[in-house]
Amino acid sequence: MLGLEVDTDPRWVEAASTHVDRVLMDHAHCEMKAASNALSLSARCLAHPRVARALVELAEEELRHFRRVLDELERRGIALEPPEEDWYAAELRRRVARSRRGLSTDDVVIDRLLVGALIEARSCERFKLLAAAVSEREPTLAAFYDELFVDEARHHRTFFDLALEIARDAPRVRARLVEVSAIEASVVRELGGAPTIHG
Amino acid sequence: MLGLEVDTDPRWVEAASTHVDRVLMDHAHCEMKAASNALSLSARCLAHPRVARALVELAEEELRHFRRVLDELERRGIALEPPEEDWYAAELRRRVARSRRGLSTDDVVIDRLLVGALIEARSCERFKLLAAAVSEREPTLAAFYDELFVDEARHHRTFFDLALEIARDAPRVRARLVEVSAIEASVVRELGGAPTIHG
Repeated sequence: MLGLEVDTDPRWVEAASTHVDRVLMDHAHCEMKAASNALSLSARCLAHPRVARALVELAEEELRHFRRVLDELERRGIALEPPEEDWYAAELRRRVARSRRGLSTDDVVIDRLLVGALIEARSCERFKLLAAAVSEREPTLAAFYDELFVDEARHHRTFFDLALEIARDAPRVRARLVEVSAIEASVVRELGGAPTIHG
Repeated sequence: MLGLEVDTDPRWVEAASTHVDRVLMDHAHCEMKAASNALSLSARCLAHPRVARALVELAEEELRHFRRVLDELERRGIALEPPEEDWYAAELRRRVARSRRGLSTDDVVIDRLLVGALIEARSCERFKLLAAAVSEREPTLAAFYDELFVDEARHHRTFFDLALEIARDAPRVRARLVEVSAIEASVVRELGGAPTIHG
């Protein structure tokens, strides 16, 4: 699915769907981090106005998601706590940086865009799994996750297209995406299945 | 105006209105930085959900402004260059940090909100001046600056109200705002009048 090399362990689905409140709290932090990341990338891409603009639009969408997750948390009377470390995203970035051959600004930005594409793909896969797992108990939440599934799939594509636009070398970007996918799979194989979006 | 202790030097108005292209480029960077700043503040205020949400809405509005400035730059065929340092904002933050007595997280956040309130007030004053200065030559741009004048005045109020909400001690926040205003005035007195939003 969307270039992911390994599927999420079914034990994660079990843990996440039984601890929906914890997942929601973590989800709020993920949306905020995704928005901040898209903005900081946009600020690095000002020489490519179309790319900068697309990343700002993406950040705006993540912020709308953030507010919707806050609504859901409020409805449930849950107060947000400070974020835990997102080991999956941090480790993915570390391993991708270590495997990078070029050192130009564009190489770094392209890798950040491809990492973004992979994180969106993984979130997409997981929202689909979560939507199915909670559909009977929590139909409204399942509908929200279904919507997010569609949005994340689109974001995956956006990040990939922006990497293509900056690189102007489709075969190179496709080859690097395969490498980044393999790294993402290696990280996912080490996950413990905690009830967080990237657990 | 909005608690500002000194007016902008008329020489700035002269410089800015004769170098509108340079002001627009700097303006794009200011909107992006304002959005990033509001987001990073929001992430620090998650224990105050209403504050966090208001800051996210403010960031979304700054991003809409950013895109409108990009539109204007594109219309004029200007490519964005990397940002210059914003001495005014950086120096204001440094001086406010040096004058801070309390060291709690809330003290830091309240000061950041009050600095935000002052920067918005100064931008508000300057957009009003710019709108008047370019109204004959560039009526569309003048209309945009008039709109921003209104938005920045509202943001000034929002930042102040959020500081009140966190502090729950209106006299203390008002007293600190007076101190921060005096610091802002000391920074403004040292400005050279470059054709940038905070020049």
